[in-house]
Amino acid sequence: MAAFFKNRFITNEEALLHVSDLSMQRGYAVFDFLRTVNGTPLFIDDHLNRFYASAEAIHLQLRISRDEIISVIRELIKRSGLTEAGIRMMLTGGYSPDSYTPAEPNLIITCNPVKTATAEDFEKGIAVITYPHQRELPHIKSINYLTAVWLQPLLKEKQADDVLYYNASSITEFPRSNIFIITTDNKLITPKLNVLSGVTRKNIVSIAASILPVEERDISTTELMQAAEVFLTSTTKKIMPVISIDQKIIGDGHPGPITRKLYQQFIAWEKNYLVNR
Amino acid sequence: MAAFFKNRFITNEEALLHVSDLSMQRGYAVFDFLRTVNGTPLFIDDHLNRFYASAEAIHLQLRISRDEIISVIRELIKRSGLTEAGIRMMLTGGYSPDSYTPAEPNLIITCNPVKTATAEDFEKGIAVITYPHQRELPHIKSINYLTAVWLQPLLKEKQADDVLYYNASSITEFPRSNIFIITTDNKLITPKLNVLSGVTRKNIVSIAASILPVEERDISTTELMQAAEVFLTSTTKKIMPVISIDQKIIGDGHPGPITRKLYQQFIAWEKNYLVNR
Repeated sequence: MAAFFKNRFITNEEALLHVSDLSMQRGYAVFDFLRTVNGTPLFIDDHLNRFYASAEAIHLQLRISRDEIISVIRELIKRSGLTEAGIRMMLTGGYSPDSYTPAEPNLIITCNPVKTATAEDFEKGIAVITYPHQRELPHIKSINYLTAVWLQPLLKEKQADDVLYYNASSITEFPRSNIFIITTDNKLITPKLNVLSGVTRKNIVSIAASILPVEERDISTTELMQAAEVFLTSTTKKIMPVISIDQKIIGDGHPGPITRKLYQQFIAWEKNYLVNR
Repeated sequence: MAAFFKNRFITNEEALLHVSDLSMQRGYAVFDFLRTVNGTPLFIDDHLNRFYASAEAIHLQLRISRDEIISVIRELIKRSGLTEAGIRMMLTGGYSPDSYTPAEPNLIITCNPVKTATAEDFEKGIAVITYPHQRELPHIKSINYLTAVWLQPLLKEKQADDVLYYNASSITEFPRSNIFIITTDNKLITPKLNVLSGVTRKNIVSIAASILPVEERDISTTELMQAAEVFLTSTTKKIMPVISIDQKIIGDGHPGPITRKLYQQFIAWEKNYLVNR
């Protein structure tokens, strides 16, 4: 595997940062993650838009142009020899002399094999639990997943696949995915506030507009539990039906018809993106 | 400078972690920090107690005994040649194959020069602002300081030295320090819930008990603003008078008599600790 650090290509084994980096001292770094299909980076513009937005929001400057990053990513894919790869770009607070003040940011881009959800995974769907938590600076794709990783033993104990966060007023998101519900009167709803703007989320909102009414607004836990269908979206999970929440079965416990339709349309949308590159 | 990683001593330059470590992938790591005076580690038992407690609370196992860590720290101090050093022990989620599930933890201990507050710093005191934020898993000394570092431009704009967090019901702590207030009827109060158990905080609670009544309980923002004296405590700042909060002057804008007394007692307490090693 290949990686990119400090303006040069390195091997994956050389992808090392000194412990004085603010990512390790203070968890201060942003990243973005995209995947490739047959060697083509998927929705790269959306991911770069978000990466630059995260960097700006966290007051870190990316001293590399979009075109340069795209060239680096293409070269990494070529060097890795992978057709299906996960590209991770991370910008950190840098080697801070006082372990607290941001310094010259470190940019590191890695390229590794990636596992994505299959059609069989879609058919099985996932079981989730809910947990009260509001992510810090939710619009920024920071490296802070402290609560998410910390909750893994609870997920195991509850035999759940993922955890849905909620705050005082509404449900928000999964640690690494956005949530959508389909109401019994056939509306598609997804939260807009206090969540990360997912790239797959954005695509689904676009695709769904020609199929059913779409609303981006808060969803209460009551409305969630009354939903006809629930699914999550992410770069690697694409669309994943949620078949139970806190042990309550959603619908008939199988992927619902609208979720299925959106899934098929998303697969087609992805193919269409690739043929137009 | 010297460091310790994977059961061996290394140079500071070799203190590198691979980017697949969960500290960089997901901000998943705990640490503790202590300082030395004339080459003696200060309050080392308290710091080790908290480090082991943080590790356990975050489901990471320290595969090294307390005695071994103490030997390592003594050797690092010796190799560094520093009399006043900052020792940082960090335990991370390890090199995770899927970038999400904790693996074999990485322990890395560094030893660097440290800057501590002086008697002159005490006399000047500090100006602080308040900000609504509740730290995630506050009882764990994790590396998550996302909001704290992100707020630094605001501190600069407000010409403030630090930020005091508050949640819906009360004030809690500074990003790296605990808060104490002295009421107009001479009681010392410090929050107990939703804060990190500071080692200096613990020492001050012990020292103060013979001087005035001490209460560990929630403090509202109203009670804070009516306080006669306010100070913070930390390993490097020791006791630091807060002379203004959100631009409102506390007391007469100088270190108050009880804060001063506690400061002198703490300096004596520290000396006493050292002569008994």
